[in-house]
Amino acid sequence: MSSFNEVSTVEINEVMERSLIAFQEYKRISSDDKALFLETIATEIEALGDTLIEQASVETNLPAARLVGERGRTTGQLRMFANMLREGSWVEASIDTAIPDKNPPKPDIRKLLIALGPVVVFGASNFPFAYSTAGGDTASALAAGCSVVVKAHPAHAATSQMVYEAIQKAIAKTKMPPYIFQHVHGSSFESGKALVQHEATAAVGFTGSFTGGKALYDYAAARKNPIPVFSEMGSINPVLLLPDSLEKNAVSLAKQYAASITLGMGQFCTNPGLLIAVESEGLNAFIEALSNEIEKTIPANMLHAGIHAAYNKKMQDALTEKGVALIKQSSNKTENLQALPTIAKVSGEIFLQNSVLHEEVFGPYSLLVVCKSMDELIEVWRSARGQLTTSLMGTDKDFADHPALLQTAESIAGRIVFNNVPTGVEVCPSMVHGGPFPASTDSRFTAVGIHAVKRWVRPVCYQNCPQQLLPVELQNDNPKKIWRLLNNEWTRDIIK
Amino acid sequence: MSSFNEVSTVEINEVMERSLIAFQEYKRISSDDKALFLETIATEIEALGDTLIEQASVETNLPAARLVGERGRTTGQLRMFANMLREGSWVEASIDTAIPDKNPPKPDIRKLLIALGPVVVFGASNFPFAYSTAGGDTASALAAGCSVVVKAHPAHAATSQMVYEAIQKAIAKTKMPPYIFQHVHGSSFESGKALVQHEATAAVGFTGSFTGGKALYDYAAARKNPIPVFSEMGSINPVLLLPDSLEKNAVSLAKQYAASITLGMGQFCTNPGLLIAVESEGLNAFIEALSNEIEKTIPANMLHAGIHAAYNKKMQDALTEKGVALIKQSSNKTENLQALPTIAKVSGEIFLQNSVLHEEVFGPYSLLVVCKSMDELIEVWRSARGQLTTSLMGTDKDFADHPALLQTAESIAGRIVFNNVPTGVEVCPSMVHGGPFPASTDSRFTAVGIHAVKRWVRPVCYQNCPQQLLPVELQNDNPKKIWRLLNNEWTRDIIK
Repeated sequence: MSSFNEVSTVEINEVMERSLIAFQEYKRISSDDKALFLETIATEIEALGDTLIEQASVETNLPAARLVGERGRTTGQLRMFANMLREGSWVEASIDTAIPDKNPPKPDIRKLLIALGPVVVFGASNFPFAYSTAGGDTASALAAGCSVVVKAHPAHAATSQMVYEAIQKAIAKTKMPPYIFQHVHGSSFESGKALVQHEATAAVGFTGSFTGGKALYDYAAARKNPIPVFSEMGSINPVLLLPDSLEKNAVSLAKQYAASITLGMGQFCTNPGLLIAVESEGLNAFIEALSNEIEKTIPANMLHAGIHAAYNKKMQDALTEKGVALIKQSSNKTENLQALPTIAKVSGEIFLQNSVLHEEVFGPYSLLVVCKSMDELIEVWRSARGQLTTSLMGTDKDFADHPALLQTAESIAGRIVFNNVPTGVEVCPSMVHGGPFPASTDSRFTAVGIHAVKRWVRPVCYQNCPQQLLPVELQNDNPKKIWRLLNNEWTRDIIK
Repeated sequence: MSSFNEVSTVEINEVMERSLIAFQEYKRISSDDKALFLETIATEIEALGDTLIEQASVETNLPAARLVGERGRTTGQLRMFANMLREGSWVEASIDTAIPDKNPPKPDIRKLLIALGPVVVFGASNFPFAYSTAGGDTASALAAGCSVVVKAHPAHAATSQMVYEAIQKAIAKTKMPPYIFQHVHGSSFESGKALVQHEATAAVGFTGSFTGGKALYDYAAARKNPIPVFSEMGSINPVLLLPDSLEKNAVSLAKQYAASITLGMGQFCTNPGLLIAVESEGLNAFIEALSNEIEKTIPANMLHAGIHAAYNKKMQDALTEKGVALIKQSSNKTENLQALPTIAKVSGEIFLQNSVLHEEVFGPYSLLVVCKSMDELIEVWRSARGQLTTSLMGTDKDFADHPALLQTAESIAGRIVFNNVPTGVEVCPSMVHGGPFPASTDSRFTAVGIHAVKRWVRPVCYQNCPQQLLPVELQNDNPKKIWRLLNNEWTRDIIK
């Protein structure tokens, strides 16, 4: 798909060695200068103007309005991390002052978070800006103090190249180490493997398929010195349609979910691919209203031919599984890479027996599991473990009738949505975008929001360190006025 | 070594299934009740009195005074985590309130840390209390809200059994789920593998050898759903003896380090196994003084026959490596499991060529690397990557002459010690006990101090969640008055 040359093993070696040297130089640059760097990347991306949007639209088939929104999210994320660096408390500074009279004497110990080293980022096909070249993984890794090597996604390589060049301008303007950010092209598993297994690589960020993300995890675990891999690998995002809500809100629920299932042609990792409900009149009304909405949807092109072909195959395969019945497929004609939004149903009993039905169908497809009872609904829900999100559509009565739902939700997903759709991931400190395996390879971290930075750092502590050698965040006079845990109490005070 | 029966695969299955159920019950127990549980474990351990110390001394050969100190550390850790639970801010609550007028509307999102699930803990041979049955891994995992299954270390299985029984009393007294803590015996790799690979196991804690810790990591990575493993696998803890300090403090440095090398017969993962210096008159004086100190040390029994045999073999092997010269070995006669403290030296050039010399010799052994220049010293230091600690013995002049030392230290170790010995790990919030691989399998976490709890938790967020369903830490009225990140500002305020 890409007209760029596949990176060679020799080049990967050079790139990673340069990345390690740049990382060491970047350590000596102040947080404020790093913040300016991130902001300048945002400005340079904006300076590309419509040319960038047009290029991305050509490569991804995504409409300009969506791409403009995604660009805003991308530059917003860069500025969010810049603000985080300027404020400074993100390093989780902790100070325990000495107690010389203690037996044995208690030393002075001070801790903060430091960068891991060169991070390799794999661009995502479905987010050419926000989860690709200068996306969340890159922004958080650069903020952490890491150097970054991005492997451009081959489906939007020219877009990636443009963003890379914008970052190069920002590097030059803010006098950063020239190789603090590097960019390679490639579509083979071999180049991905070589990047992950290079001695200088300290961590990996990936957003995409289970196959790709799990392969990178396995390559990293097979290293002589294993490194952390954060792969965000998608999800079917189970949605509970609870009885009282279905009875009262069937039509509005159907409209809300039809829009969520078909948003961006379903090409979001938070797409609601699984709806679960107990049979009832309310559910029948929901099915009818959802059918009407799906019928009306206008097909649009998918991201690229590979995704389009995979959608058609997986969707058709799912429909031929025993016990699966089509509810509705948009009857519009399609051309090129357009996809038909599709909803199907199956009984809870059959769903529980067939693990194929638990797999993600990436695109505008959703499977409704019709259960005989709330007990079966909960069993179906529990069987879909390891999700980015799970949603509960319920009234106060529903939640009062079924008080244990929240505990199950917590065991399944990283984000629990109440009376809302899972699509639309707010970028804010409280967001969790990640979840138990296979939603992600490490549920202890989020890929969205400022705490995404925690994937790329480790704590280091200094025992009896002379003041003048300490990082600025740990010095007695707290020049940045950051929050610190001082003798186990949070404070912004100086130490006298 | 153990008179207890090896746990069978069938029993492991039962144990882990019970652990999962207990974990779910434990979720419904308040933080204050969990705190009382931890404190009661401490009380019950103390109630065992001298019997426990005597049993441990029989099994480990450690002197009573050391064991009494270690018991105090163990009960102190349990009470530290109890205090952490009562205070409550450890859950890192974060709240972003809704902005309905935003386009699209910003939902209300609230995040906190929740427990991963059942944790399997492998007891350490060298810390029968503080890193075994009710040690730091168990205390932090129970505090996190996890259930725990401990595999007793076979070298002190009866001690472990006594501590287990104390925990059982605490479970009964505080009405905890009976299987929240379980205990199995076994010395085979197979039982370790079965515990790590059981479907219900959510995370693993280990303290011990590289071979053991890496094997557990590999078992976990090979699971269908990989889980986090925190293995703390020891270290050679490089110590820089800087020129001006050697010139001024040779004798006091030698006394300090002789004591550290031989403390507890060198059976600490923070034992200084590698001393690095540039040749000088000061170094000669240091060597002479260190020799005198080592000569005087009185051999003591090592933990068990296996460790004693391994020490003698690895120490002898190291001494026969090309270019390695014995500096001094205690000339006292030994009997039983007594070990001879030994120091040897090698040139920087040879050290850099021979990776065998980089390996840990667990026991009272230290290798002095004599370098031709500061450049060679730094090269030798850098080659010893992945350490729990590194120590810098230097004067203000040394640090002024060599300003880049700290940056190298940060890349090597989790804890950087200035003018102090690495042995003696203070239990406090700022402690980092962990480091780049192979010091530990995940450098992003510490095994000591309250933040050790972070190994066993993951974030979960609640979007538009009704107040009455939210965990107490995220409710508007902040009943526990904890620190929360509210719209990206730290505060203990309530939300109106």
